[in-house]
Parts: sequence; structure tokens; C-alpha cells
Amino acid sequence: MEDSTLSDEVFIRSADVSWTDVGAGLRRQILGHGPDLMMVSVQLDKGAVGALHHHPHRQVTYVAHGSFEVTVDGRCELLNAGDSFYVASDLTHGVRAIEAGVLIDVFTPTRAEFLANG
Amino acid sequence: MEDSTLSDEVFIRSADVSWTDVGAGLRRQILGHGPDLMMVSVQLDKGAVGALHHHPHRQVTYVAHGSFEVTVDGRCELLNAGDSFYVASDLTHGVRAIEAGVLIDVFTPTRAEFLANG
Repeated sequence: MEDSTLSDEVFIRSADVSWTDVGAGLRRQILGHGPDLMMVSVQLDKGAVGALHHHPHRQVTYVAHGSFEVTVDGRCELLNAGDSFYVASDLTHGVRAIEAGVLIDVFTPTRAEFLANG
Repeated sequence: MEDSTLSDEVFIRSADVSWTDVGAGLRRQILGHGPDLMMVSVQLDKGAVGALHHHPHRQVTYVAHGSFEVTVDGRCELLNAGDSFYVASDLTHGVRAIEAGVLIDVFTPTRAEFLANG
């Protein structure tokens, strides 16, 4: 029944959603989300780094545009548009944008701190 | 500990993954996934229809390419590349491709039947 509160957020147009500047060439936009699933678009300038970090939320990421060096649990590989990566709970991960690009991060459960902070 | 079995599936390159032809102008490719989170790429020909259906899994979908008429719980809207939609548990939903395109569907929990059937 929690989802009934989200009835106005079924359709999310990128143009209608604000971007949060998280610094160092990264911007974040919250797309579709419910209590246990959240999609976030992340724009990165060329050379921008999403620093190594970890969280209990499981994450799967789609490379929508660009080319990224992706590190997960000490392994580093180059991924291009159309590729994806999966991050199990608490594994350390980070990215570096080889060129300007967009990542679509999806989390379960929802990153509540993103909703609080934009 | 379940995720430890997925250590070889951290990085998923689209070019390395087979496509499953699901008929009627739709093709499906399983991208990153773990026990409780699964990303699937769906290619649709112009005019192809993902028929109305429902499942208990929560779903969030990113429009990677193209333009789609999306129906969720009786509401129908037009979404373009960069937009997204969220489907709560058991809500009836479907899509129609206005032009050829790609949807990135993400589910929690994982759609085990996709792993069984390709």
C-alpha cells in the first residue's frame, strides 16, 4: 500500500526534474522510484570521478552515453554505452568518465538520503 | 553471501550477451543482475507492442532510445529518450513503440523466469 502515495510519480520526464550538482563535474537527477527501487541519472563531465564508496544497497548501472572506467571490488574495466555493471551489497565501487557521459544507476532499496538531499 | 556466486558477472558488455527474440518485434537481453535486482534491455521495432501484463515485481524503466506510449494502471502517456516510468507491484502496464527504440527495464526482485528462459 506504500506505493499508493506515488500515484503521481508513475511517469517521470527528465525535463521536469531538477538536477542536483554534487560537485567535481557530476550532476544527479532522480528518476522513477518507489519504496524499494530507485533510478537515478548521473551526468559526468569528461574526466569526472565518482569516488570509490560503498553502501548496503544493491546497485545496477547502465551506461547510457559515454565511456567509463568502472572499478568494483578492486577490479577495473572499461565500459561503453549499452554496457552495464552490478554491485553487490557493500562492495566498494567508483567510476571515471573517459569522455562526458550519462550513467543510469538503479538501487534496491531506495537511497533515502537522495530524496532528502535532492 | 548469495552474491558471491555472481563474481564473474560484475561487468556486462552488451556485445557479449545473447538476445532472446520474444516475438512481435521485441528482443530481450539480460544485463546486470543479482538475487534482488535485474536489469534487462528490450529492443522494440517501430509499432511493436509490449502487451498489457502485470507481475508482483516492482519495475522502473528508462527510455534509452525512441519514443513510447506507456500505459500504467489505465493511464497512458508518451515518453521519450531520457524519461522513465515506475510500476508498483501488480499494476497492469504495457508499451507501444512509436518509433524503434530501447527500454531499460529494472526489476526487484529478479525475474527468475527470464534467467530460466533466456
